[in-house]
Amino acid sequence: MLVVTALGGNALLRRGEAMTAENQRRNVRIAAEALAPVAKQHQLVVGHGNGPQVGLLALQGAAYGKIETYPFDVLGAQTEGMIGYMIEQELGNLMPFERPFATLLTMIEVDPDDPAFKNPTKFIGPVYDKEEADRLAAEKQWVFKQDGDKWRRVVASPMPKRIFELRPIKWLLEHNAVVIAAGGGGIPTMYEKGKERTLTGVECVIDKDFASELLARELNADLFIMLTDADSVYVDWGKPTQKAIRRASPAALLAMSFPAGSMGPKVEAACRFASATGKKAAIGALADLNKIIAGEMGTTVTTQETGIVYAD
Amino acid sequence: MLVVTALGGNALLRRGEAMTAENQRRNVRIAAEALAPVAKQHQLVVGHGNGPQVGLLALQGAAYGKIETYPFDVLGAQTEGMIGYMIEQELGNLMPFERPFATLLTMIEVDPDDPAFKNPTKFIGPVYDKEEADRLAAEKQWVFKQDGDKWRRVVASPMPKRIFELRPIKWLLEHNAVVIAAGGGGIPTMYEKGKERTLTGVECVIDKDFASELLARELNADLFIMLTDADSVYVDWGKPTQKAIRRASPAALLAMSFPAGSMGPKVEAACRFASATGKKAAIGALADLNKIIAGEMGTTVTTQETGIVYAD
Repeated sequence: MLVVTALGGNALLRRGEAMTAENQRRNVRIAAEALAPVAKQHQLVVGHGNGPQVGLLALQGAAYGKIETYPFDVLGAQTEGMIGYMIEQELGNLMPFERPFATLLTMIEVDPDDPAFKNPTKFIGPVYDKEEADRLAAEKQWVFKQDGDKWRRVVASPMPKRIFELRPIKWLLEHNAVVIAAGGGGIPTMYEKGKERTLTGVECVIDKDFASELLARELNADLFIMLTDADSVYVDWGKPTQKAIRRASPAALLAMSFPAGSMGPKVEAACRFASATGKKAAIGALADLNKIIAGEMGTTVTTQETGIVYAD
Repeated sequence: MLVVTALGGNALLRRGEAMTAENQRRNVRIAAEALAPVAKQHQLVVGHGNGPQVGLLALQGAAYGKIETYPFDVLGAQTEGMIGYMIEQELGNLMPFERPFATLLTMIEVDPDDPAFKNPTKFIGPVYDKEEADRLAAEKQWVFKQDGDKWRRVVASPMPKRIFELRPIKWLLEHNAVVIAAGGGGIPTMYEKGKERTLTGVECVIDKDFASELLARELNADLFIMLTDADSVYVDWGKPTQKAIRRASPAALLAMSFPAGSMGPKVEAACRFASATGKKAAIGALADLNKIIAGEMGTTVTTQETGIVYAD
């Protein structure tokens, strides 16, 4: 069975923790302990987020100041290297030595006409006071939006269209390699109008759940799992009536509404995968990974279900 | 024919240039134009240096200050992502779309008993006054050595022993992928004494020519080419008697002496490859790549030669 997982940012860095190499490595080790039993039984592809890491690299670049901070495609490539390395090393340490590993730099094509470019929504980096945000907006042509009572930079988050390294990933899976790919949602690239032969990087961020979903779908994975803070998708989250959804059909789940910033994209990605492939998608907590695969924890989305089944 | 190339740092950044993403990309594009004809005719693996880039990342981290600067294994992984991305994209733009590309994160094992750890020699990052160097040495346990009339940090540069991702690289070459690997000399890792099951990162830098040579040798490449500033290996470099060496046997070349900091390791790597495999190794300038392959430029080291043949 081929399992594609998308590791949430908090699998790599817990809220409030300093983003030291040591803290990241410790969290990656915890993630690796959850992933190792799956890797031992199945073919495995590991995708992951990079939000805090890319934010730190941008801050470090800005603090140094002597060189213009690198654009997001380049910073994204740096984080694919850094995070991929930690996952490959830590997960590798828990596997038989003979099991091959490959971390592949992953470029993903986006559409220059994607409506996301007209309406940037993805928060990036630290929060600022209004005054500082206005100054940076003027100086760097950044776009800011309000986040709580502060202001934060936003960039476009277009949909992923094509994964350029898909064939190498398939070839490596044929050899049962554990493949780490599409990190941080992949490096955003596009063919600009009038330059159809020249792929270039784009100053934007692709949602890692959508990127991993595209990868899982193109690989025809048997199971696509998004690992996050929450142990399930909930209805009425935070209300006395909240209930965990254990299983759902894509149609029934899409008829409900979920927060755009958190569970919304995951639900959308899960439904898209399940509808397109007829295979199962799941959302749940890293610590429950084995039980999610067994259908005992998390939320599984499948066309074999006709409605919504809640947890006991 | 399988060609393994090692791109010198100056193929990515010319001396005196600011290390902006734009400058790096422009230089990578020039390198890609030299590599594309080779990639069209042959199987190709591209290795590359990362000295200036890893230095910049360390400076950016130090400027930010709030998070302890990442160790060299992690910074090396970041540069493998960044530089690999630029090479993959720029070289890819010059190749038929169908040609597969793969940039592989590469971990390389070093020996904890390598004598290099007792005598760090590899200059890293900027130059400092004696006073600042002494302060940093005390504060961060860094080792400094004199570089001209200034002081500069040095780290160990142990020999590469084993490339963990060798099998994936071979599998990708079987599909005629252009593989970018062993960037920056690979990410230095080791099994510490008493922890023989746990691979960890190491605060050191592996020479990129030695790393690429190991890769070329393990892949049984037909040709291993180190691309650098100089158009050949010279005897009496800088003297009126200087002469370019066109061809040499490993034994004849090893009997001569070359500067430890520049041509020495390249000569050593070329001789090692030629002796071990019976295939050709070459040293020369990026712009001459096609003529180096034809034996008309650069210095070719081969066991088919018995002595030294100078250029006309």
